[in-house]
Amino acid sequence: MPKGLLIVFTGNGKGKTTAALGMAVRAAGHGLKVCFIQFIKGGWHYGELDAVKRFEDLIDLHVMGKGFTWKSDNIEEDARLAREAWDFASTAIASGKYHTVVLDEFTYLLHYNMLEIEPCLDVLAARNPNQHVVITGRYAPEPLIAAADLVTEMQMIKHPLKSGIKAQKGIEF
Amino acid sequence: MPKGLLIVFTGNGKGKTTAALGMAVRAAGHGLKVCFIQFIKGGWHYGELDAVKRFEDLIDLHVMGKGFTWKSDNIEEDARLAREAWDFASTAIASGKYHTVVLDEFTYLLHYNMLEIEPCLDVLAARNPNQHVVITGRYAPEPLIAAADLVTEMQMIKHPLKSGIKAQKGIEF
Repeated sequence: MPKGLLIVFTGNGKGKTTAALGMAVRAAGHGLKVCFIQFIKGGWHYGELDAVKRFEDLIDLHVMGKGFTWKSDNIEEDARLAREAWDFASTAIASGKYHTVVLDEFTYLLHYNMLEIEPCLDVLAARNPNQHVVITGRYAPEPLIAAADLVTEMQMIKHPLKSGIKAQKGIEF
Repeated sequence: MPKGLLIVFTGNGKGKTTAALGMAVRAAGHGLKVCFIQFIKGGWHYGELDAVKRFEDLIDLHVMGKGFTWKSDNIEEDARLAREAWDFASTAIASGKYHTVVLDEFTYLLHYNMLEIEPCLDVLAARNPNQHVVITGRYAPEPLIAAADLVTEMQMIKHPLKSGIKAQKGIEF
């Protein structure tokens, strides 16, 4: 029997979203349906978007946070938008339509207390037991790590932006 | 001016090859050419292969180690095959045809002394200065880390195979 895994890619190193993209594409390679929800505006650029377009029959991509960056001075408004985005994700998870649901950069909503973690964990626990969920982002909170089946911490050992090399097409975006 | 980066994904956690696949797909999303060389037989399965097929105009995939696993009892033969695989990779790197060359699970050839590291670093250093190279695998040796621009260590915090859950389609392969 397959068991749906809760997978977390966290840590301060490069490769979290990139690995989630790799997982989405691999599942799609098997002909399996994926819902990829990007929680932070500006995290994705044309490279990812155009890549995913080749799989539009299998990967549903949703960019949340349109028009805002979760960094406004209006905490109330941020929290409201976070709840809206999470409601959308919950619906996708509960639909049972997907082999894998990716919640990209979702940890920030928990870390910055825009969402309460317990109701989120309840939604994850209530999902179809065959469904995989992949969550990425720095600062994955302890209760999320405790609930997860697979956790990788991407640790930065070296990063070129630290050496003054600028972000580049096909690498950072 | 773009600068070709030497990127290393190492560590014992899940996500190294997956992140390299994500990078390949992202670069292809930009319309950039990628050469993806898989050094260990059996590391890739149909999910990845079928996914990459949607990008066959942009991603050249080569599976080395066909018919062997680098784990024979014949060390001489392993070393010969490793050199052949590296010669192939060197030619791809030197061709200048690619925005990014991925050497997936390449570190094992260095770690198990099937190749000498210094000539490999020379080939990497002599490449087109705009070309990116992504190297994955556990046990990245120190001189490779020293030469790299970006290094992420994927650290296993939790892994389901440790809890007795079997490898699954769309997740491990």
